[in-house]
Amino acid sequence: MSIEKVAQLAGVSKATVSRVLNAHPGVKPDTREKVLSAIAACDYQPNLLARQLRTAQSHMLLVLISDITNPFCSRVVQGIEAEAELHGYHILLCHSASQLQREAAYLTLLTGKVVDGVITMDAASGLQDLQHIIAGAPWVQCSEFDPAIPASSVTIDHLDAARDTVHYLAGKGRKRIGLVNGDMRYLYSHHREQGYQQAINALGLQWSGVAYASDISTEAGSQALQQLLAMPQPPDAIFAVSDVLAVGVIHAALQAGLRVPEDLAVVGFDGIPFTGSLNPPLTTIEQPMYQLGARSVQLLLQKIRQPHAPVIREVLPWKRVERASS
Amino acid sequence: MSIEKVAQLAGVSKATVSRVLNAHPGVKPDTREKVLSAIAACDYQPNLLARQLRTAQSHMLLVLISDITNPFCSRVVQGIEAEAELHGYHILLCHSASQLQREAAYLTLLTGKVVDGVITMDAASGLQDLQHIIAGAPWVQCSEFDPAIPASSVTIDHLDAARDTVHYLAGKGRKRIGLVNGDMRYLYSHHREQGYQQAINALGLQWSGVAYASDISTEAGSQALQQLLAMPQPPDAIFAVSDVLAVGVIHAALQAGLRVPEDLAVVGFDGIPFTGSLNPPLTTIEQPMYQLGARSVQLLLQKIRQPHAPVIREVLPWKRVERASS
Repeated sequence: MSIEKVAQLAGVSKATVSRVLNAHPGVKPDTREKVLSAIAACDYQPNLLARQLRTAQSHMLLVLISDITNPFCSRVVQGIEAEAELHGYHILLCHSASQLQREAAYLTLLTGKVVDGVITMDAASGLQDLQHIIAGAPWVQCSEFDPAIPASSVTIDHLDAARDTVHYLAGKGRKRIGLVNGDMRYLYSHHREQGYQQAINALGLQWSGVAYASDISTEAGSQALQQLLAMPQPPDAIFAVSDVLAVGVIHAALQAGLRVPEDLAVVGFDGIPFTGSLNPPLTTIEQPMYQLGARSVQLLLQKIRQPHAPVIREVLPWKRVERASS
Repeated sequence: MSIEKVAQLAGVSKATVSRVLNAHPGVKPDTREKVLSAIAACDYQPNLLARQLRTAQSHMLLVLISDITNPFCSRVVQGIEAEAELHGYHILLCHSASQLQREAAYLTLLTGKVVDGVITMDAASGLQDLQHIIAGAPWVQCSEFDPAIPASSVTIDHLDAARDTVHYLAGKGRKRIGLVNGDMRYLYSHHREQGYQQAINALGLQWSGVAYASDISTEAGSQALQQLLAMPQPPDAIFAVSDVLAVGVIHAALQAGLRVPEDLAVVGFDGIPFTGSLNPPLTTIEQPMYQLGARSVQLLLQKIRQPHAPVIREVLPWKRVERASS
């Protein structure tokens, strides 16, 4: 069954059928309906592969996300998606879990031209390996990046945000500020811990303590707090590198009979939507999640259109949102 | 540059190179490294499209998810992913947002043989439209399904779970049990509301009240509770059709000066991981999220291998998890 037959049945041009098949914006809903019905009626199977071998671009972008259960990632993806659709692109999501073998499988979509470019949210520690596979294809590093890799990046200044958080808690009279950190394969974990230590030193605080959560879950946050509470002198404030961990920290604190914020002030990170609805509402360092995603798409499309576009290192602003937990 | 050259450089067989390119399990890590280095060294671009035109299967599955920010969906995807990898398959995720135009674009991956089959988590209301596009390709409906569609489905008995929840709250002495429901394009919303009404009638309760959340967010849950609190006689218990909505319900209740559970008992739905770490911890109806995903993959692979396999309607058990909120 041919594209001509579909066009004839639907009473539209071949170009219109092609636009519908490629999900181009600007096709009227009822026209699209007519074309889809005609396709169904003639059992026409658009041969995507043959089509993509003929045309230069697929108008699909690949997004490698490291942790699909992390609400930070899903908010960034919303920004990626909205911006991509504005430009007539669709998104394929791959949950890489930062595992090279999975990533290699997904990246055959890139070398096979099923997608035109890739946005990675993978842990920085694995990006060098990825570079071998991605080679020179259009690539933007979102949130996590390796400065040695010549692909543009969009992120925030994690060092600065961490330093500011410790100064903020010290300004509230807190003397024993603990850090609940995450997976050290991530650049953000390194930078936030560095910023934390820099501020502890700059303020001349005598106490510091770091516990590492085994994953980004409330349970892991609770366990990390329990480690810090077992110290000879327990902390009076916690800076958790993720809002999800902070929820677990508050839970474990209340279970241990501590009052939040009186006995233990808690600050999270990311600014995921539900943090304002917690009891108590959570103070957090808000990342511009939607913008991180949208800006990554803009830089990627620039690279797809102009393969020799320069590498851009974009640093977006973060914002402290003060609530009752601190 | 040919596959022979890569094999020669890496000192392995062509079959091994092929296994690495297809991300088959069972390739030793150092062998894989050798092959990847050889690919990088000879700048070999595996022609995915040509390859897939030659081979019958791509070993990729497409998953259409309706709401990427809903933690229920991400847990189900974890189950899909783990089961798929057990069988040597990879997953492409598409965030359809239940929009037909997006779905049509993604489903060209199916007709184009980039993927071997599809699992949908889309709202039941749109599945008939999808059927036109998916035609007879291997398809499993996960959680949401349309009984008129001849594609297997995996779900729970939402009617039964809703009835049981109302009986449970009535058994605790609650007289005015309100329902905070979601988007009525979903089958689960219909079934849970039906079950709710059936139980209200069976118990002979004089009071009932339903409010609809505009989306699955804590803010929407708070607004829905405010509507119910504005009734001449406010509710003394809330059954929310999602844990995320329940978080918003509790937040709005506390803000209104109500005690949870003394003045207002709250029960959520889904059993997403953080519900046990809330303050108060949330009573919820736990869905077997991981199993919903894993079982969908098993049924899909069966269909891929045996195109004439019968349609299976699988109903998995749910479980009430009692905590302090009720």
